[in-house]
Amino acid sequence: MPNYMLTLCYDGTRYKGWQKQGNTDNTIQGRLERLLGEILGEEIELNGSGRTDAGAHARQQVASFRAHTALSADTILKRLREALPEDIGAVSLCEAPPRFHARLSCTGKTYVYRVWNSDMPNVFDRRFMHTVTDTLNLEAMQLAARHLIGTHDLSAFCSKRSTKKSAVRTIDGLCIEVVGNELRFTVSGNGFLYNTVRIIVGTLLEVGRGALSPDAIPDILASLDRKNAGLTAPAKGLCLWEVRY
Amino acid sequence: MPNYMLTLCYDGTRYKGWQKQGNTDNTIQGRLERLLGEILGEEIELNGSGRTDAGAHARQQVASFRAHTALSADTILKRLREALPEDIGAVSLCEAPPRFHARLSCTGKTYVYRVWNSDMPNVFDRRFMHTVTDTLNLEAMQLAARHLIGTHDLSAFCSKRSTKKSAVRTIDGLCIEVVGNELRFTVSGNGFLYNTVRIIVGTLLEVGRGALSPDAIPDILASLDRKNAGLTAPAKGLCLWEVRY
Repeated sequence: MPNYMLTLCYDGTRYKGWQKQGNTDNTIQGRLERLLGEILGEEIELNGSGRTDAGAHARQQVASFRAHTALSADTILKRLREALPEDIGAVSLCEAPPRFHARLSCTGKTYVYRVWNSDMPNVFDRRFMHTVTDTLNLEAMQLAARHLIGTHDLSAFCSKRSTKKSAVRTIDGLCIEVVGNELRFTVSGNGFLYNTVRIIVGTLLEVGRGALSPDAIPDILASLDRKNAGLTAPAKGLCLWEVRY
Repeated sequence: MPNYMLTLCYDGTRYKGWQKQGNTDNTIQGRLERLLGEILGEEIELNGSGRTDAGAHARQQVASFRAHTALSADTILKRLREALPEDIGAVSLCEAPPRFHARLSCTGKTYVYRVWNSDMPNVFDRRFMHTVTDTLNLEAMQLAARHLIGTHDLSAFCSKRSTKKSAVRTIDGLCIEVVGNELRFTVSGNGFLYNTVRIIVGTLLEVGRGALSPDAIPDILASLDRKNAGLTAPAKGLCLWEVRY
């Protein structure tokens, strides 16, 4: 049965995240499975590269599915684009090798978290940024960020963790750039736990405000205890930027 | 009575344009007059630099008003920011010279019209661009644009024109740039008639599609007849970019 790789983007504002919840249309996966099922005339099981949170966005999300269809990938893509609401975009669809699986084959991901750091209004990108009006110390945040790069047990930076599985992950890159009034956090790694990027950003913002020292990060990591890290930054600033295979 | 200059930006998607219509809150002017009236405790008459259409946006709109208040401009600005919905931003507020009037003192304006020229999805900027999937001839559009630069009677590029007033205006600049999948039209002039920018863009898009020759523009201008120009491009792609004094 042919295997497909679907590349997507979405404005997640209206949705309860990627993962299907019961029989509803208000998740990205749920909406896509219903539309693909209607186009292909069979029940479709869509595997995303990973979940995205309610209200979080994706510039590039990848999903895979199998189908018996006689339709070409181009035709399926065209019909899917016609059927999708304007806040979900189908970027590409192609046949994939038989063993390709969007989640299991994934070798790395990049997330971007956008903070609007100004009391000026942010009318045009307000859906995609978290506003912080405090003055932030960029250098302190960058010092703190360096402690997170590398291979660590990220239990302290993970919500609702199941203790059965390993929380060891590698963060390859964590950079913070100033782009006008925006502070842009770009985080790359081989895999992320639940809420990890949002907790990293929330913790770095506390460092930026001076509420936490950059040198506190190694101790927070070593504690393996979520309550020692900072608040979980709001989902609206988070965007799944790239999925690598 | 002190005179104030208020600089604004807005995502016009939800609004029936700038100009107040009766006693409603669904215009930018109407909403602002109500909020300023509540903050200042007196009835406020707000003069915009010009109207913007229902669904059109402003990166920079300027408005002036007079008030008797003892509040400082900074305090009024702060309270206005707190009261405004997230799709209207108050950029700045300052006291203006007594004779300053946002419309009458205006010496020039720039509009930007954004076209998404691709069948790729445009999820993140969909509120601010008009999508055209046809292949467009950029060179032909640029040739046509050159005919519009200068001082002309723009009756052919104006909707619902009152024949009493002069339709002579000067277009200082009209440039078309390609920015990724976007085609960006930047139009500057000393004043614009009703729908002029949208009709210019609609006409240039017909040139781009090959439905109209660039050399037809001088005849359309000379005809002074709206029905010879192209369709009015949709409001959502239009943004008032800059107002000059």
